[in-house]
Formats: sequence, structure tokens, C-alpha cells
Amino acid sequence: MTDLVTAAMIVIGDEILSGRTKDKNIGHLADMLNAVGIDLKEVRVVPDEEDEIVAAVNALRARYTYLFTTGGIGPTHDDITADSIAKALGVPCDYDPRAYQLLEQHYAARSLDFTEARKRMARMPIGASHIDNPISLAPGFTVENVHVMAGVPSIFQAMLDNVIPTLKTGIKMLSATVHCPLGEGTIGGPLGAIQKAHPDTIIGSYPKSHENGAFYTELVVRARDADVLETVRAEVADMVDQLAAKTA
Amino acid sequence: MTDLVTAAMIVIGDEILSGRTKDKNIGHLADMLNAVGIDLKEVRVVPDEEDEIVAAVNALRARYTYLFTTGGIGPTHDDITADSIAKALGVPCDYDPRAYQLLEQHYAARSLDFTEARKRMARMPIGASHIDNPISLAPGFTVENVHVMAGVPSIFQAMLDNVIPTLKTGIKMLSATVHCPLGEGTIGGPLGAIQKAHPDTIIGSYPKSHENGAFYTELVVRARDADVLETVRAEVADMVDQLAAKTA
Repeated sequence: MTDLVTAAMIVIGDEILSGRTKDKNIGHLADMLNAVGIDLKEVRVVPDEEDEIVAAVNALRARYTYLFTTGGIGPTHDDITADSIAKALGVPCDYDPRAYQLLEQHYAARSLDFTEARKRMARMPIGASHIDNPISLAPGFTVENVHVMAGVPSIFQAMLDNVIPTLKTGIKMLSATVHCPLGEGTIGGPLGAIQKAHPDTIIGSYPKSHENGAFYTELVVRARDADVLETVRAEVADMVDQLAAKTA
Repeated sequence: MTDLVTAAMIVIGDEILSGRTKDKNIGHLADMLNAVGIDLKEVRVVPDEEDEIVAAVNALRARYTYLFTTGGIGPTHDDITADSIAKALGVPCDYDPRAYQLLEQHYAARSLDFTEARKRMARMPIGASHIDNPISLAPGFTVENVHVMAGVPSIFQAMLDNVIPTLKTGIKMLSATVHCPLGEGTIGGPLGAIQKAHPDTIIGSYPKSHENGAFYTELVVRARDADVLETVRAEVADMVDQLAAKTA
């Protein structure tokens, strides 16, 4: 398929790996990309260490249409994302004149010192374009196919809203869910046969539990073509109905 | 430091990457490992594709003391974790006699067919040991330094409770939090100087927002030595107090 648009994500931050902060950005990015037909193919969570960030950026930016990062673009010593991205791309990192002026005016208007720490937030790989931050002003940035955003979920979400309209989008993956009262062990064989017969779909099987602890299964058929989707959804639903009737 | 025990995690599943299911296991594993002094250093989320799983397993199992995986050990066609792990380790994957018997008896007792799909749950790399599953019976497994567990959070958590006591634990990382009413831009410079003076600690700075939208900062000092921790915590707290007095 020539219209596949793919993506990867790097979550940068010791606080996620220590468990202190629970990530909320992976699921949001996945939802937003899925909605515009971009396939999120891999996520990595890495610590605030330059070598680790550089290695992950270079592994992923070459492989997918887009790379998104969250975290590490604030004013403190552990915010090393801008310099690490620049190093990965082999370009210098410096104060971006427009970001510097924006922040300088912002702090002057609030009678706050434009400290060295605050100046750090104007650093970007040279040639990067801004991702506007309507919440706390300091911009994210895009350089080549890498979109660098904040880790604070409200700011990340606002930045992502500004990035999504700039992306090349794919053919949206459609999905249809078949509720299955039976366990995976009962339907697994026939479901596998349906998947094998329809390689142009992705059929997922997700065991779930009710509040009372009883298990059931959600079967999700995904395809980019609406007719294919409906054909396979109907096959899965018929299979479930027949097996449910047998075991009733 | 010779006592460092490190870990990585692989979350296996298209449903996380599509946004359909929101991961709850990364944060739980991070908390549990942190509590016993094991450093979680990297997490990867990969799709239900053998090549991707094999590559991630081999990249991470060699680098860290332990590797934990979640997802893909159920009975359906998209559950390919056991075979993928075996392939990564270069060992055959087959029905484990003890798991096979356990499941066979379980389904017989419930008058359910022991289908090909259900038999899949007995597949493991040869030589793997079981991780007991008190919730839905089908075991996870440990092979070499790789611990393979379910993706359903309740089952994952129960399996992990069985794994944790078997692990070599490290010197627990201690932490102390300093509440800071000032923004990162104000304290970033002095905080960086404190970090530089104490390379045996990890000082994190986490911007947070109140319900009303106002920002504050949590400063977290982490160290393995209690005296070092207290010394640096006190330095950070003094710095915050002094700057807060100045800006009041």
C-alpha cells in the first residue's frame, strides 16, 4: 500500500521510568494519529540521558514517516531534549532568535528575570520551526520529520493540536467491534482461520472482564476498505453466533 | 556502583498502538521495580509482529539485568509472544508438558473443549519455568532473564507479584520531594548548580498545575545513600526558600 503513513514516539523522562509520573501521552497520541490514518508503529520510553535519546531518535526517525517526542523541553538541567535532538540530527543547537524574543518580552511584561534557565527554553536545532504553545508560551519545534513537544499532558495536547493539521495523513484505518460472550479459547481457532483468509485486515482479540470478574472478549476487525471491513465483520459475527448457539 | 540492577520492558500489542486500549502496566511495573531497587531503564511498545518483537527482545535482554514483557500470550492468532521469544533466544517453542496437563484438566473439569486455541497457551520456549497465574490459570513464563506475562492488567499484576520475590534486588533508590511554589525558570539555574555539585544524586524538576491552572514545581532528589539524600534535599529546600523570599 503506497498511502501508508507511519509514526513512532519517544517519551523522554526519568519520572516515567521511576513510576513517579504515569504517562498519559502515549494513549492520546495513539488516538489522535489513528483518527487521521497515521499508523503509530512503536513507542520508546527513555531516560534523561543524551546518548539514550540520540540513539532512539536516530533509530526511529529513519524508519517512520514521523517521529514525535514528549518531555524534556523545560528550563531545568534535566531538560536536554533540544540539544539531544540537534546532536542526533548533526546540526548545531542555539538560541532561536524568534523564541528568544518571544520569551524575553513575555517575562519582561510579567516583571520576571529572563534567567539563564528560562533562556534555555529558546534553544533549538538551527532551522527548526516552532510549535506554538498556547498554555505556557515556550514553543516546541519541528525539525525534519521530528516533532518535539512538552511532557505536561495539557501542553502536549495543545501542541499536538497545532501539529496534526500539518501532517500528511493516510487512508484512515476503519474498525468494527464484535462483542463475544465466549472466551478466547473457544473462538480462537475459527477466528484465526478468518484472519488467514483475509490478510488485508487486522483482527484483534481482546479479553476483558466485567466488574463481577467474568471474562468476555472483544473482537476488533480493522481494515482501510469499508466493504472489506463489513464482509469480515459479518463473518466474525456469524462465527460467534454459531459457537454461542452451540454452547448455550 | 556494583549493585545496580537494571530492567527493560516490552509492551506487546497493536491495541496499545492504535489507542484502543490505554496501557496501565508501564506505571505499575515502574512502581514495583522502584520499590525493590531495580532501575527500569527503557520501555518499548511494539506491534503484534514477530520481527519487531524479536528485534526488541534481543536489543534489550542483552543490555539489562531483566526484561519484562506484557501481552500476546493468550489463545488467539495474534498471540505470538511465546514463539517470538523462543525465536529471539534461538530455542524451540513447544507445548510445555506441565502447562498442557494443567490446562487440559482445567477445561475438562469445566466440560469445555481443549481446543487448538487453548492448547496454544501451553506453548513456551523449551526449558522455560512457569509464572503462576492465579486468575485465569494459563501461566506466564521465565526463560533466561526474560519474564513473559499477560497484558490484562489484573493478570499481569498477579503474575508480577509472583516474579518480584525471585529477582535480585538492588540498593533501593531513595527520594525526597521539595515543594516549590516558583516556576522552573526561576529555580532552574541554581538547581542545575546543585545537581552539578552532587553527581551521585539525580535531581528532577517536574512542573505541575493546580486545578485553577496555576503552575508550581516539584523538585525530587534521588540518591541511594540516605545521608547524601538529606544533604542535597536541604540544599534544594534552602535555595527554594531564599528565592521565594526574594520574589515575595
